[in-house]
Amino acid sequence: MLDFNEKTATEGVLKSFSSIKNERLKELMSSIVTHLHEVVKETEPTFEEWLTAIEFLTRTGHKCDDRRQEFILLSDVLGISMLIDTINNRKSKNETESTVLGPFHAEAPNISLGNNIANHVEGERCIVKGKVTDTNGNPISNASVDVWQSGPDGLYDVQKENHIVDLRGKMTTDNDGTYLFRTVKPQYYPVPTDGPVGEILNSLGRHPFRPAHIHFMVKAEGFVDLTTHAFIDGDPYLETDTVFAVKESLIRKLENSTDPKDGTSCKTLEFNIVMQNN
Amino acid sequence: MLDFNEKTATEGVLKSFSSIKNERLKELMSSIVTHLHEVVKETEPTFEEWLTAIEFLTRTGHKCDDRRQEFILLSDVLGISMLIDTINNRKSKNETESTVLGPFHAEAPNISLGNNIANHVEGERCIVKGKVTDTNGNPISNASVDVWQSGPDGLYDVQKENHIVDLRGKMTTDNDGTYLFRTVKPQYYPVPTDGPVGEILNSLGRHPFRPAHIHFMVKAEGFVDLTTHAFIDGDPYLETDTVFAVKESLIRKLENSTDPKDGTSCKTLEFNIVMQNN
Repeated sequence: MLDFNEKTATEGVLKSFSSIKNERLKELMSSIVTHLHEVVKETEPTFEEWLTAIEFLTRTGHKCDDRRQEFILLSDVLGISMLIDTINNRKSKNETESTVLGPFHAEAPNISLGNNIANHVEGERCIVKGKVTDTNGNPISNASVDVWQSGPDGLYDVQKENHIVDLRGKMTTDNDGTYLFRTVKPQYYPVPTDGPVGEILNSLGRHPFRPAHIHFMVKAEGFVDLTTHAFIDGDPYLETDTVFAVKESLIRKLENSTDPKDGTSCKTLEFNIVMQNN
Repeated sequence: MLDFNEKTATEGVLKSFSSIKNERLKELMSSIVTHLHEVVKETEPTFEEWLTAIEFLTRTGHKCDDRRQEFILLSDVLGISMLIDTINNRKSKNETESTVLGPFHAEAPNISLGNNIANHVEGERCIVKGKVTDTNGNPISNASVDVWQSGPDGLYDVQKENHIVDLRGKMTTDNDGTYLFRTVKPQYYPVPTDGPVGEILNSLGRHPFRPAHIHFMVKAEGFVDLTTHAFIDGDPYLETDTVFAVKESLIRKLENSTDPKDGTSCKTLEFNIVMQNN
């Protein structure tokens, strides 16, 4: 184009996509370019502001390595990850809602129903249980229930130096769709704040905390895979989760209870799961 | 927020900016979040597409170092750099239009009017000259005219291994606002294609070339600094400059001519510059 100006700019760039063979790439890039140009037109950034953005993205890239994904964290704290999760997991009936996978999923040891997954931390003992059913309430036996969580110190096993697998397990529901495991109460925790995303949260006047939760990944033949969390009622960060992952339907009370195995006092969290037909 | 869904998502994230002290940061981040959410709502990316974008940004960051700025290149090929340049350099009268600075500006040796700046390359000899004036045609004496360009091989001096300063110079206009220097004809050249931006240009079905040009940075007391290019008429990439930096008003013919110094044949490029009052 020989007539680049504020009015022709976007159309000119979109025209440069006319030889793309991949129609989906064209759709994605056209939307991205159109909206980034809108941001520039709306806010009229100075050269210095543009350079600050370039430097922020560069430092975000430099912070990424095999164990750290700062661009996913950026997507998380701007609500983009959750929006993509929500759009890809629309519910039509009474199915359990999804929420983000998060960066701490890892291969978990297979456990039997009732086993304890918190073997290397001290904390408030807790039984977590529920039924996996279809949308009509029929139990789903033999469903795979993969769970993981942070400990009372707010850390996942993979964040610790010792690399000992803990606070995660994979079990299979029994004939009436029931799952049950023993653990300790999870704790709220901050997302990593020692990188560019931490800086921007600080500039935005936002805290870095996520409310306490237990992750679930549930799979069963004939049903859509479900990735979600059970959140703990009363957590101080439920309304301001820094990655916007809380849905009211996923919050559960921790009830005072007694462990039937040895009569000791403990908490119980009940989280029933409704799967969507394939 | 406890009710994250497609309708509440954007508002919820914007609400998290309510304690920002810096109003300008709030304005910028609100626009960025609103438009990125719009991209997601419009295109409904799959989880895999989102991950492809995350990985692209990560590789773009990893490609940046002291000598390479892949995010600026990305901004360039999507027309964002030019849009920011244009918005920040609105013209009201007959001032010379601006265009992008580009990544190859460096400290240039001071030269006298008429000096040759192409001392370490062979090429088609060329005299470049013009008058620097205000918008009423009054000459501006003592203006600083800083020029730089690629050689016949399409490379700037800073892109070569030998690190010899060449193809750049800084001169001062004489009493009637004239500048003049000798050089060789510049050549079109590709932006760097060995990184993620090269990959995406390829996926978009776009070539990586910029049409031949000479960069100008002109400064004079009482006037707005001007950063621009003189483009060479007839270049095959004028209409499809991969960074969208061509403006019709900046294209000049190379005329056949004779060097008055020694009577040899050469080309002449005339590029008059009109400065905007401060």
